[in-house]
Amino acid sequence: MDTTELSCGACPVARGLARVGDVWSMLILRNASAGQTRFDQFRTSLDIAPNILSRRLKALTDDGLLGKRRYSARPPRDEYVLTPAGRDFLPVLLVIGEWARRHHGGGDLSRLVDAATGEEIRAVVIDAATGARVQDIETRLETPG
Amino acid sequence: MDTTELSCGACPVARGLARVGDVWSMLILRNASAGQTRFDQFRTSLDIAPNILSRRLKALTDDGLLGKRRYSARPPRDEYVLTPAGRDFLPVLLVIGEWARRHHGGGDLSRLVDAATGEEIRAVVIDAATGARVQDIETRLETPG
Repeated sequence: MDTTELSCGACPVARGLARVGDVWSMLILRNASAGQTRFDQFRTSLDIAPNILSRRLKALTDDGLLGKRRYSARPPRDEYVLTPAGRDFLPVLLVIGEWARRHHGGGDLSRLVDAATGEEIRAVVIDAATGARVQDIETRLETPG
Repeated sequence: MDTTELSCGACPVARGLARVGDVWSMLILRNASAGQTRFDQFRTSLDIAPNILSRRLKALTDDGLLGKRRYSARPPRDEYVLTPAGRDFLPVLLVIGEWARRHHGGGDLSRLVDAATGEEIRAVVIDAATGARVQDIETRLETPG
C-alpha cells in the first residue's frame, strides 16, 4: 500500500503505522532489541528473503529507528543498531505480546522477566496524567480544524 | 509472508503480529473503535480495494477481533463490531500513535482526549506489578525448554 498519505496525515496512529506497520519491520525491531545487529543474523533467525530484509532495514534506517554502524572497513560492512526512536518503539511490541498471551496463549511461551526480580513483565497501557488504564477511560477524538 | 509458523510459536509478539501485523488490519480496528461497522464505511474512509478489505475483515473475524452482526435480512448484510479481544487490542494503537506524536509529530494532529476532563490521553506502557515504565526496566528473555 502507498503509505505516503498516511505518513503525514493528521492521525498519529496512521503516521506510526506508515513507518513500522508490518510484521517484518516489527520482528526486526524485536530481534534488534534482543541484541542482533547484523544482516546475516536477521536473515537466518527470521528466515527472510535477503531482498525483503534489505528493503526493511533501509526503511527502518531512513525512518530513524535503526542506525548504521561500520564494523568492518575491508570489506565495508555495516551493522544496525536501535536508535533512541527505535528503542522507544519497543513497548509497542510488549503490548502486542501481552495481548497475544491473553488471547492466543496456548502452550509454552517465552517470557520477558524483570532481571532484578525474575518476575514476568506484564505490560499495561495507562494514561500518564491520571494513571488510569486507557481501556477504562471514556474518550473523545478531536480532529484538527 | 506465511504467518502460520509465527502464529503458534513460542514468541507472543510474533503470535500477535500473525493476527494483526499489517497496516490495513490496524486501520480497520482504529476505525471500528471510532464507531464504523459497515463494509462501505471502511472502504470509503480507508480508500481500500474491496477485495483487500474483504480479506482483512474475514481474517480479523476468524481471529476473533471482530464479530459479525446481521443488520439487514433482505438482502442479507452483516456489519462488523469489535469483540472483547478486538477492544483489548486498541491500546496497542494508542501506543503507536503516541510514539509517532513524539517522533513524527510535525503539523496538526488529531487528539484523543479524556471525555470527562478534555485532557489529551498520553499512553504510557508500565509493568502491572511494579508500575515502572517498561523502558526503564532491565529485562531478560526466557525461552521455553
